[in-house]
Amino acid sequence: MPTLRIDNAEIITMNGEMGVESGWTLLAVDGEITYVGPVGDAPALEVDELVDGSDCLLLPGFVNAHTHAAMTLFRGNADDMELQPWLEEKIWPVEATLTEDDVYWGAMLGCVEMLRAGVTCFADMYHMPEVGTRASIDAGIRARPSGVLLGLLPNAGDMLAKAEVFCRDHDEAGDGLIKPMLAPHAPYTCPEEMLRQVIGVAGDLGVPIHIHMAETDDNVQWSLENYGARPAEAMKQVGLFDVPVLAAHCVHLDEADIAIMADEAIGVAHCPGSNLKLASGIAPVAAMLAAGVQVGLGTDGCGSNNNLDLLQEALLAALVAKVQTGDPTAVPAAAALRMATLGGAEAVFLADRIGSLEVGKRADCILVDLTAPHMYPRHNLVSDVVYSAQSADVRATIVDGCVLVRDGEFTQLDEAEVMEKACESAARLFG
Amino acid sequence: MPTLRIDNAEIITMNGEMGVESGWTLLAVDGEITYVGPVGDAPALEVDELVDGSDCLLLPGFVNAHTHAAMTLFRGNADDMELQPWLEEKIWPVEATLTEDDVYWGAMLGCVEMLRAGVTCFADMYHMPEVGTRASIDAGIRARPSGVLLGLLPNAGDMLAKAEVFCRDHDEAGDGLIKPMLAPHAPYTCPEEMLRQVIGVAGDLGVPIHIHMAETDDNVQWSLENYGARPAEAMKQVGLFDVPVLAAHCVHLDEADIAIMADEAIGVAHCPGSNLKLASGIAPVAAMLAAGVQVGLGTDGCGSNNNLDLLQEALLAALVAKVQTGDPTAVPAAAALRMATLGGAEAVFLADRIGSLEVGKRADCILVDLTAPHMYPRHNLVSDVVYSAQSADVRATIVDGCVLVRDGEFTQLDEAEVMEKACESAARLFG
Repeated sequence: MPTLRIDNAEIITMNGEMGVESGWTLLAVDGEITYVGPVGDAPALEVDELVDGSDCLLLPGFVNAHTHAAMTLFRGNADDMELQPWLEEKIWPVEATLTEDDVYWGAMLGCVEMLRAGVTCFADMYHMPEVGTRASIDAGIRARPSGVLLGLLPNAGDMLAKAEVFCRDHDEAGDGLIKPMLAPHAPYTCPEEMLRQVIGVAGDLGVPIHIHMAETDDNVQWSLENYGARPAEAMKQVGLFDVPVLAAHCVHLDEADIAIMADEAIGVAHCPGSNLKLASGIAPVAAMLAAGVQVGLGTDGCGSNNNLDLLQEALLAALVAKVQTGDPTAVPAAAALRMATLGGAEAVFLADRIGSLEVGKRADCILVDLTAPHMYPRHNLVSDVVYSAQSADVRATIVDGCVLVRDGEFTQLDEAEVMEKACESAARLFG
Repeated sequence: MPTLRIDNAEIITMNGEMGVESGWTLLAVDGEITYVGPVGDAPALEVDELVDGSDCLLLPGFVNAHTHAAMTLFRGNADDMELQPWLEEKIWPVEATLTEDDVYWGAMLGCVEMLRAGVTCFADMYHMPEVGTRASIDAGIRARPSGVLLGLLPNAGDMLAKAEVFCRDHDEAGDGLIKPMLAPHAPYTCPEEMLRQVIGVAGDLGVPIHIHMAETDDNVQWSLENYGARPAEAMKQVGLFDVPVLAAHCVHLDEADIAIMADEAIGVAHCPGSNLKLASGIAPVAAMLAAGVQVGLGTDGCGSNNNLDLLQEALLAALVAKVQTGDPTAVPAAAALRMATLGGAEAVFLADRIGSLEVGKRADCILVDLTAPHMYPRHNLVSDVVYSAQSADVRATIVDGCVLVRDGEFTQLDEAEVMEKACESAARLFG
């Protein structure tokens, strides 16, 4: 039974009150945390992998609750554009020519970037999910993958049938790293009949649904025109919330919407970077948190962010909430850090496995280097991580007890090959 | 004559149209750029310092147009608070006990952080400016330092007299790195009579004025009540704009204000991170740029940011402008990068010396590493730098032709000592 031990780090477990523990150690056996507490009380185990956390902060790994990992290939290809011409001229024509190789290496580049940035789990929505999932398993990262169900296409039924097979075939794949989802793209792209079919399949399979919701004011207007109700109420009427739902964006919510999201235990992927860049708006996160909504953070895809840096999203989440509410006490650093970790685990319905460092959960964790000048004089490590750190400060990334990044370098993965192959794909696609 | 040569980098000169040049080289003799162009046409010079820019992007150094460098000591000490209790309970009582050592090592920590992050010049406003200036000279960074003139204090006259001496004594100090300014803190802390005295001294000395302006809506209300005019108009009436003025923040401006700022050639330090964190608002940067205002970027102090990462400010500037205007094409990446470099040089009235890589200017420049996963597949380097890079990607920082940071390490400065001394000061101040 491979045993991992992490010594000498400051630790934020994210279990209960947010405090920083010194002189603690963490033990994991077969990828499961078996001890986290004072070093003196730790059981004596033969350790296969010892990680020295000196001058580092040990945190649960970041959860990227909404992305399209293979879209790293699109990074920087078309920025500062209106949404519709961007989609119609820059995204969709290229996506129509994607090969399996493109999706694999695009997703792999995304996984490499995320692991370096301390992301240990991500909820993905993209075409050819079996290919992206192969990449994430090869990279060793935890994922909740899904294809994209577009109900307006003539082959929508086939897509759903394939998605069902994908979910069945990949549940607990990668030694348990993979838990699939079903992803109807959005209410405005999936007619009611299609949604009802997806809900039925999700219920049968016992998998959550991942969907874009209320990203833009146009989405809300569309819902009012087509359902006579705002998105949350409309989706409730359709029965979407009869299964667990991860709703991405949720920018344009009113009080009644927020009450529905809380009552129905919806997971929300707040994507402040993408919402700012596309000028979609600022999601009412302070109000959602106050209402008890399970809010995590997402980067969205690299077409609209342009990176997969979840720590940057935590900063943005804390900052934009303040200016939105006019209240500098809104979404304090601790709330932002919670969203980046345990909140994300809740939002993607994996909080029983990950999101905090406690006995019985999987050992998904990261070490953040505290020695850069911007991390001094260390009055408050929670504040320092959220407001001052950058993802390059992540020194080690551990998923399921496996040390994937150590001292800032990949232990197994050939990073140079990933970059080279991704560039080849990008060159061919955009050539 | 020490000669520096930088080869093999991609280059954005920021001179004219923003393009990326390949196969160029840069030469500097005695700190002055003597050649930037195709490598084949470069004059043959004996080179004392050769920098290999392979896999890097060469840019003009970032200009931090508004900060309080010594306040790194306050980083993380008090976040997520209302402005007044923050100042009255957390900042002012501690500032009253600052020693010269505290200011020196606080400023030095700020300089170290800025140099690592590619900031080659900063406009500073803080107590004991002669001490902070000593730190910046020791660090080798370019600066426009100023003390803080508080007109409401009984010793305001003495402060101005000392500031005048500071300006006279430090003009072109540090072999030309230092160009002082005079800093009346803000209209609401400097009565009209005091402002007129400061303007007179600034005119006599030929130094610009650095002032906080229209940071909060309260500031605007105060101006309306006390001057019967909004801040820009009020300051125009007082005669402030008879000398060059660097105005920090400028969050709450209407169209008439913006017209005044443009007409009077005011330099603006846009500080989006601080303005978001303190819930001050979002400055109308797109409108300012459209009107021709000289806008640079500032981090503000570490009490309200909490870092000195100007590249993060460039990202924030681009993002918040879009959501503020509802226009995803507002403040595109190129505009943000310009504000971080040449725009900042204009705003601090040093564009004749720095801000772009052209013959006759000082060799203040940085190399940004392009090899991190988040910098692939490199469709557009301007976009990649603004929307995806992080300041840890800065590999080399060169000021006045001196390579201060090379391969991510300081060439001369003892970084560990700086961190240790800054922590000692912080421990004593807050202990």
